[in-house]
Amino acid sequence: MLLHLSTWQEVEAYLEHSQGIILPIGSTEQHGPTGLIGTDAICAEAVSGGVGDAVKAMVAPTISVGMALHHTAFPGTISLRPSTMIQVVGDYITCLVKAGFRKFYFINGHGGNVATLKAAFSETYIYLEDLQISDASLVQCHVANWFMCGSVYKLAHDLYGKEEGSHATPSEVALTQYIYPEVIKTAPLSPEVNKEGKIYGATDFRRRYPDGRMGSNPGLATPEHGKQFYDLAVKELSAGYLEFLNGT
Amino acid sequence: MLLHLSTWQEVEAYLEHSQGIILPIGSTEQHGPTGLIGTDAICAEAVSGGVGDAVKAMVAPTISVGMALHHTAFPGTISLRPSTMIQVVGDYITCLVKAGFRKFYFINGHGGNVATLKAAFSETYIYLEDLQISDASLVQCHVANWFMCGSVYKLAHDLYGKEEGSHATPSEVALTQYIYPEVIKTAPLSPEVNKEGKIYGATDFRRRYPDGRMGSNPGLATPEHGKQFYDLAVKELSAGYLEFLNGT
Amino acid sequence: MLLHLSTWQEVEAYLEHSQGIILPIGSTEQHGPTGLIGTDAICAEAVSGGVGDAVKAMVAPTISVGMALHHTAFPGTISLRPSTMIQVVGDYITCLVKAGFRKFYFINGHGGNVATLKAAFSETYIYLEDLQISDASLVQCHVANWFMCGSVYKLAHDLYGKEEGSHATPSEVALTQYIYPEVIKTAPLSPEVNKEGKIYGATDFRRRYPDGRMGSNPGLATPEHGKQFYDLAVKELSAGYLEFLNGT
Amino acid sequence: MLLHLSTWQEVEAYLEHSQGIILPIGSTEQHGPTGLIGTDAICAEAVSGGVGDAVKAMVAPTISVGMALHHTAFPGTISLRPSTMIQVVGDYITCLVKAGFRKFYFINGHGGNVATLKAAFSETYIYLEDLQISDASLVQCHVANWFMCGSVYKLAHDLYGKEEGSHATPSEVALTQYIYPEVIKTAPLSPEVNKEGKIYGATDFRRRYPDGRMGSNPGLATPEHGKQFYDLAVKELSAGYLEFLNGT
Amino acid sequence: MLLHLSTWQEVEAYLEHSQGIILPIGSTEQHGPTGLIGTDAICAEAVSGGVGDAVKAMVAPTISVGMALHHTAFPGTISLRPSTMIQVVGDYITCLVKAGFRKFYFINGHGGNVATLKAAFSETYIYLEDLQISDASLVQCHVANWFMCGSVYKLAHDLYGKEEGSHATPSEVALTQYIYPEVIKTAPLSPEVNKEGKIYGATDFRRRYPDGRMGSNPGLATPEHGKQFYDLAVKELSAGYLEFLNGT
Amino acid sequence: MLLHLSTWQEVEAYLEHSQGIILPIGSTEQHGPTGLIGTDAICAEAVSGGVGDAVKAMVAPTISVGMALHHTAFPGTISLRPSTMIQVVGDYITCLVKAGFRKFYFINGHGGNVATLKAAFSETYIYLEDLQISDASLVQCHVANWFMCGSVYKLAHDLYGKEEGSHATPSEVALTQYIYPEVIKTAPLSPEVNKEGKIYGATDFRRRYPDGRMGSNPGLATPEHGKQFYDLAVKELSAGYLEFLNGT
Repeated sequence: MLLHLSTWQEVEAYLEHSQGIILPIGSTEQHGPTGLIGTDAICAEAVSGGVGDAVKAMVAPTISVGMALHHTAFPGTISLRPSTMIQVVGDYITCLVKAGFRKFYFINGHGGNVATLKAAFSETYIYLEDLQISDASLVQCHVANWFMCGSVYKLAHDLYGKEEGSHATPSEVALTQYIYPEVIKTAPLSPEVNKEGKIYGATDFRRRYPDGRMGSNPGLATPEHGKQFYDLAVKELSAGYLEFLNGT
Repeated sequence: MLLHLSTWQEVEAYLEHSQGIILPIGSTEQHGPTGLIGTDAICAEAVSGGVGDAVKAMVAPTISVGMALHHTAFPGTISLRPSTMIQVVGDYITCLVKAGFRKFYFINGHGGNVATLKAAFSETYIYLEDLQISDASLVQCHVANWFMCGSVYKLAHDLYGKEEGSHATPSEVALTQYIYPEVIKTAPLSPEVNKEGKIYGATDFRRRYPDGRMGSNPGLATPEHGKQFYDLAVKELSAGYLEFLNGT
Repeated sequence: MLLHLSTWQEVEAYLEHSQGIILPIGSTEQHGPTGLIGTDAICAEAVSGGVGDAVKAMVAPTISVGMALHHTAFPGTISLRPSTMIQVVGDYITCLVKAGFRKFYFINGHGGNVATLKAAFSETYIYLEDLQISDASLVQCHVANWFMCGSVYKLAHDLYGKEEGSHATPSEVALTQYIYPEVIKTAPLSPEVNKEGKIYGATDFRRRYPDGRMGSNPGLATPEHGKQFYDLAVKELSAGYLEFLNGT
Repeated sequence: MLLHLSTWQEVEAYLEHSQGIILPIGSTEQHGPTGLIGTDAICAEAVSGGVGDAVKAMVAPTISVGMALHHTAFPGTISLRPSTMIQVVGDYITCLVKAGFRKFYFINGHGGNVATLKAAFSETYIYLEDLQISDASLVQCHVANWFMCGSVYKLAHDLYGKEEGSHATPSEVALTQYIYPEVIKTAPLSPEVNKEGKIYGATDFRRRYPDGRMGSNPGLATPEHGKQFYDLAVKELSAGYLEFLNGT
Repeated sequence: MLLHLSTWQEVEAYLEHSQGIILPIGSTEQHGPTGLIGTDAICAEAVSGGVGDAVKAMVAPTISVGMALHHTAFPGTISLRPSTMIQVVGDYITCLVKAGFRKFYFINGHGGNVATLKAAFSETYIYLEDLQISDASLVQCHVANWFMCGSVYKLAHDLYGKEEGSHATPSEVALTQYIYPEVIKTAPLSPEVNKEGKIYGATDFRRRYPDGRMGSNPGLATPEHGKQFYDLAVKELSAGYLEFLNGT
Repeated sequence: MLLHLSTWQEVEAYLEHSQGIILPIGSTEQHGPTGLIGTDAICAEAVSGGVGDAVKAMVAPTISVGMALHHTAFPGTISLRPSTMIQVVGDYITCLVKAGFRKFYFINGHGGNVATLKAAFSETYIYLEDLQISDASLVQCHVANWFMCGSVYKLAHDLYGKEEGSHATPSEVALTQYIYPEVIKTAPLSPEVNKEGKIYGATDFRRRYPDGRMGSNPGLATPEHGKQFYDLAVKELSAGYLEFLNGT
């Protein structure tokens, strides 16, 4: 059930039986020579849609720009500063809490979002308590990274071994190929990529990882792999959502 | 050319011949008993896509949550506070300016965004000059409301007369019906709606406009009308984009 | 009734019969070779004083510095950033709401203030609701531009035609001449002024409008015209205030 | 020379021979049963005008609302929060520094402004250095309280002794009577006022000082005293301004 | 009783008989060729510990970085911007108020903190009232500068006369020598130091006071003097704390 | 080498051969019935001091209040909001970068700080690049949690098994007992503690973990264990610092 394709009365009806919502969050950032700039948002949105269908949960519009400042030396990257993202996430949650939602399940497609998301949750909990909203203490936020699902991680390892790398990975590229088979990109990939995972500022990042990849060989990706990743992520996160929803 | 379906090298290549970009911006807010909560984002995104195709312009990911605080007494609405939105828009533009973009054409689907967008432009111009980015003084931002296009306005008047109203209008509902014919909603519409256009706070808004509509009869909308609106908006805004791009 | 010439007990007494207040807001910005830097504040203050007398309303101290960032490449201009102005307007309204005021009628002398003022109203409404002030939902803010009054607009057109222009206009200069007949400025006005109304950043503005005027011939202004404008604006805005005060 | 009654070319000419400017700052706050709410702004503006005339200095528009949160339990008081005022003062100074001003002499009418003003100066100095404005390190700000002038203080002591008190004092009331002889207020003053100068929050302030006065007997004020205070303050601050302007 | 060496249950027990707390605040800034960078924090912490013991009061962890922007042209200085410090102080007080504390006695070691601290108190009082915390109006904050104690001031004058100066003073250096006798520093001190107390921006400060001292001769300091200063400050501030705690 | 016990000339000399600095960061939060409120700051400070001695590195003053909002329902906890902490960390780093430091090694004692610290690093990198500080792209920040050292983790497991838990752990309590043997606390510990690691808001945290512990049995701690933890952490983090300092 997609929030943006619902009416407000349908949301009102939904709230009578559930206070949970799924929020896809991605990023708009370079993903190497063959990865789509929207990779993280595309993956988060697709997986969220699948989970929403599986568990009959409401799915909010995708937050497609996240915290990707370290990628901003590559053209096409758009990033919020962490302080902006904290406000954005706070505004989203506050509106939805006022409407009656209490359980916020963020399905995330970008590792760089996690720290700021968690900071935003902390800032928002206290803000809501200060607003003296009834039941503010029942508000719970959770971030679930589709690419960290045990089953996804295992498949990536089985398929790609060390060539999975940590940015512009074949697994995420495969997933976008499954979703958008008509926009599969090809480009020569110089095999040598600095594999160390260090990330500091934007200029340093581009110096360190000249074509944007971090230790990955996205040339291994196929749409068929993408379907496998999709199915595994949807299955595992559907269970995760229900556990979160029904947990204390 | 959609930014999220491009690679960073494709953006780099694009910047060699153009410094313009289209940014769709909508809202996630109630649109009456039969309007989709995502109406404004859906319309802005669709029209932007059409314009981008027509004029070979880069189109950024849609900003799907805007300034809709006055709708937040209806469940499902999500809004940024103006101060948040100013930061968001500033972060978007700053990243893109650093990459080389100079002309920002916002295609907007929500009247409530206009004031804050304009404030954000002013805040961003001075910020960029203070950053001492070369050519900061060439940065130009423009907001174009698809629903205010002369041709769109005329058609809405011809088709609906006064029943166009000012929120949850048949014209915007028609456009969403054209884009998502599979999710056309129906609901009884009590004919009497307070037609005064006054907007203050959220609680007051719901008191004043109990079902969310402002003077409109969205029951008049059809997908065929939607196609007409789409074609007119794309045509008129394509010309508008080119004039903006090539203007001083 | 001027707030700054009242005692707090007089305000307390006023609040027993009215919850309305007029807030003049102007700007401190270049107005071409013959216009006063304080033009917009001077006009807003004078008209507000006239309206306050006519309708027995409380008038707050003038906000004399507004959003004029695009004029800051000319010496003497002082501007708030939009984010600052949103806080300022919020602080004003919050203090007055706590005291019992509910209806805020801003009489504005500067087009550049409008977007940020409207953003500030939205930000303030939700802030007040979050503060859980009783009757917060009754707070209403309105911006009335004296120079947009129908009667004023018509007179300007009759007197100056296209030479009214859009910045450093003969109508606003005339009004300042009526208020300060002892400081009428003269200077040679090169007749050619780029008449396009485009406004982006500060450096661009000065490049585009080298002497500060936008399409106007302020040399046509006379103090007698100024009196006419004053009388029309006071009359029309007095009616507007009462309608706002007594409206739902 | 009043900035708001000047043209931008006059400011440009002024800057050729001076980089100094006087900024009057007051407050809009209760001043007991007989004091004007605008007392602090009125006094600062009048004294600044006198000093500007005496030393041929540019005088900016009065900042009429300052930091008066502790008075906000009395109706009619308007206050900025300190964080807002820091932004406001920073915006004023930054605009003027970009235009060429370097020496900022604030003539202040309200003790409660001093701490926040000083904080704002510190915040602004580092901001200007970070902007890499040439000569940013020459920017100097000074706050001069007219009511703390040695000569003023002595006269107040001679005329009123302990009945000068510390808020709604006869000296400031006298000065407003001199400036606005037509709005002299009278009201019964209960003689007993808690004379301790402790100031905490707004509710506490009103509980502690029920009619708004702090240890003062403003009934002693006369317009003739006001003229004496005015002359002393203008003389002493004129010397102070020149020393500041010409100092290292 | 040191907060950081207590358990939460001990704090809970303490709150049953007292709502007062001492908060040491210093600075991390250059103190001339022989003064420790931590001087202000060290002194505030030591004196606070002494007062806490004497009056059985809870002592919070030391705020060791304060407002020292004007010292930042000397390496080793760390400063908060005033706007940051206002938030920090607000966060501290808000947490402690929610726990039950009402009386906040800041023992301060740095003159440069005073303005921002007072601004922070004002900002925090209104914030707490807006949070609608019960008894928010009983919250009181006070800043006590150990170096301004009458007895301390007199001793410094007796021992050092004019060579006390106003920064990197022998009195504060003596106190650190008493606390840390093992880290007494020596360095040649050029006798001539510009004695004027003017403070503007950081670059200007270093230009004006090349070795960091302001009119002081810290070579006069001895650990024995330090003990005298310590004893006097503890005695005077212990009395001050009790008066504050028991006062209305 | 402790910054607060150094002079600015000593810092200047240090910078000639090293651009690295260690920043201890802890928290001021409840640590169960027998844990000190200052546990995290005490541990971070002690370990940092040991590392600084071992590798001859400068050690900044301890940030003793961090992000502990989820503990604020227990009296004695003091926390910064994440948005405040981002500003604080940014101010620290910016001052030190201007002085010449480039490598920032945070030794952290509190898991709850990590997300906000990382967000702060991202915010600061871009801020420094925008300031156009030379070599801004060489600034690197790293957070090292002493309690996550492999050797520490192994010892805790060997000594306590599952009774290590995740808050108010015997390992951190042991370390504080080693540092402050004179303030070892005892209290009855009810054996049953909800061992799930879920953390949401403050009220929820206290409901979930009534005495503040999370799955831990701090009664197992001894000062002798503490010495072992100290030695292991110092050894491992000394190596870590040098690798960071000398790495690219």
